[in-house]
Amino acid sequence: MSRNQPISSFHPPRRMLMGPGPSDVHPRVLAAMAQPTVGHLDPAFIGMMDEVKALLQLAFRTGNELTMPVSGPGSAGMEACFVNLLEPGDTAIVCINGVFGTRMRENVERCGAKAVVVEDAWGTPVDPDKVAAALKANPGAKLLAFVHAETSTGVRSDAATLCKLARERGVLTIVDAVTSLGGIPVLVDEWNADAVYSGTQKCLSCVPGLSPVTFGPRAVEALSKRKAKGQSWFLDFSLITAYWGGGAKRAYHHTAPVNTLYALHESLVMLEEEGLENAWARHARMHEGLKAGLEAMGLSLLVAPDSRLPQLNAVTVPAGIDEAQVRSQMLSRYGLELGAGLGALAGKIWRIGLMGQSATPGHVTACLGGLEAVLAEMKAPIEIGAALPAASKVLFP
Amino acid sequence: MSRNQPISSFHPPRRMLMGPGPSDVHPRVLAAMAQPTVGHLDPAFIGMMDEVKALLQLAFRTGNELTMPVSGPGSAGMEACFVNLLEPGDTAIVCINGVFGTRMRENVERCGAKAVVVEDAWGTPVDPDKVAAALKANPGAKLLAFVHAETSTGVRSDAATLCKLARERGVLTIVDAVTSLGGIPVLVDEWNADAVYSGTQKCLSCVPGLSPVTFGPRAVEALSKRKAKGQSWFLDFSLITAYWGGGAKRAYHHTAPVNTLYALHESLVMLEEEGLENAWARHARMHEGLKAGLEAMGLSLLVAPDSRLPQLNAVTVPAGIDEAQVRSQMLSRYGLELGAGLGALAGKIWRIGLMGQSATPGHVTACLGGLEAVLAEMKAPIEIGAALPAASKVLFP
Repeated sequence: MSRNQPISSFHPPRRMLMGPGPSDVHPRVLAAMAQPTVGHLDPAFIGMMDEVKALLQLAFRTGNELTMPVSGPGSAGMEACFVNLLEPGDTAIVCINGVFGTRMRENVERCGAKAVVVEDAWGTPVDPDKVAAALKANPGAKLLAFVHAETSTGVRSDAATLCKLARERGVLTIVDAVTSLGGIPVLVDEWNADAVYSGTQKCLSCVPGLSPVTFGPRAVEALSKRKAKGQSWFLDFSLITAYWGGGAKRAYHHTAPVNTLYALHESLVMLEEEGLENAWARHARMHEGLKAGLEAMGLSLLVAPDSRLPQLNAVTVPAGIDEAQVRSQMLSRYGLELGAGLGALAGKIWRIGLMGQSATPGHVTACLGGLEAVLAEMKAPIEIGAALPAASKVLFP
Repeated sequence: MSRNQPISSFHPPRRMLMGPGPSDVHPRVLAAMAQPTVGHLDPAFIGMMDEVKALLQLAFRTGNELTMPVSGPGSAGMEACFVNLLEPGDTAIVCINGVFGTRMRENVERCGAKAVVVEDAWGTPVDPDKVAAALKANPGAKLLAFVHAETSTGVRSDAATLCKLARERGVLTIVDAVTSLGGIPVLVDEWNADAVYSGTQKCLSCVPGLSPVTFGPRAVEALSKRKAKGQSWFLDFSLITAYWGGGAKRAYHHTAPVNTLYALHESLVMLEEEGLENAWARHARMHEGLKAGLEAMGLSLLVAPDSRLPQLNAVTVPAGIDEAQVRSQMLSRYGLELGAGLGALAGKIWRIGLMGQSATPGHVTACLGGLEAVLAEMKAPIEIGAALPAASKVLFP
């Protein structure tokens, strides 16, 4: 507690955020957030909450009435789905092909439920055949949980097929769409997904701190039929919906993060202005540009083409290169943040995010240019001078 | 989902926040929050986290190493304390003298623990004699939980005495300091309190969304000796401390609410600039001014003088007056938000907050002036013209 001088105001460095999130936040969103705080029961604020709900329904492509942001980060949204749907003794089938599937299993077990694990190698998608077999072998399973877009590996799994398999067996689904929402199609109603959660700091390009969640009719029914109260008061949807539910009369549950909700509102307004399909197309195009540049340089992507996430590119670190040193140089020279590998992939990949406002030709070009310079100085076996023309050809054909 | 016109940017009305929180946020804090987002593992951000920790230690008057903001509102901080310290089968003595004591009991029960309730009337403090008796009658109790500053009633309980009683019996304490921190003394080390949580949107005058928490050595020991994992992954301090813990190497747990932490940092820098004792004195002085004005007008405070919170004034609604109508007029005319009564006190009191940046002579005066005008028009039996001179005499002697 003893300090020699007082702590002064903090001023962050300027960055280009190209890691696994947060992504760059647009000045409009930052400005929206900095508007004066109002009360969480103020009529004007309640009107804004209704708009946030409607905008989230559009982003999730759902008509689900229970659609709202949980007042915490993505892991709070994940936990909210599990603690509201699971009871002790239940069985849940959990697909693990990266960090976030592992976290799902933790959640299941902390609910006193049994986790039946379907494993796939990190860097590959969830195998629907294994899921079908697990569903068949566990006829009493209450739910199937999987990650649509694995942030730790850059893999997209086939959410439509996995939801269909669960639905055919009358099993609920929990889908992690933290990194997918706004970047690739998340079609909650079309998939018949039951509970889906996301995060604000990825392809929505809002600040971190909120977790949009949507519950379909079967999930709401399961919630209403619980035998006992859930283990969390803070995340209990049967209470929170009295605050986020429709109408002018709201019951106080907790003090909503008012200014962060201003920010989410503005980021969703911007998404609507661009158009959801246009945002998906932009993410795809930036990915193609980055990929062309990386491959021209001689680098390769970890994930097979048909399950690559455009918004999160896992790039294999060339042999003999200290990956942390590269990230450190990118940050200190260019203010450009890249992500490290996690768990089994630590030291083996970089994670290059092209999410939301970080999915622009400027970001792609700065990243390729910087990587080439840094890797060349480290004598990595790369092709010099090829990346930027290759990317440019794709970005501006 | 069908709307006739697109949703446009939200612009909140200007308010003077004099309810039970959020309180007015200083432009410096709003500006700090609107700075560009950086990564949650960025070295610059990690440096700022260390400063936030040090500043929270100063605010809490503690040397506790485990001192950090939980990434959620006060109710997440409350839940974090209970789920980290309680295990199924434990017994907790819970003091209930308002809404938040009731919520503590909910937390205890959802942990699978037994709650022994010590009840006191809403509007009165926790009775130390009853607590002493409960401690004696329950020698196996693991912890004592109480609310230092009951936001629902405006009552201060004697935290020093309650913590001492628990300590004498070797019982841990959980103290709710949501509304007290920064407004009246919260002396964690002097009290020997074991686990204390607060909120950012009360006397710290930061935006809502974070919950500062501190765990003393006995709480840390209890955490380390758990028989089983806690029921919450998101709130598991044995994991979160690997991110908030000292040193440059941080383990990712969840994406921290980066911009809200900028805001908290700035609000704590401002608190240090003012000086904690000066902030306490300012809250006390504004309360004296408000009280003088209210009493001169003929209104009375619910709570007895020796347990009144300066930062939250429960004012008895005169007979025959529609309290909601008064609040509605105060909001629409003057942009001034007052709080309603909750639970047993709904319809019977207003809650007038003088918290943080809302504890100024301007706020006191606007509130008294507006109340007098509105009540006079509603033909309430008040003294006209007496409030403002009485307040002024106290505020500017």
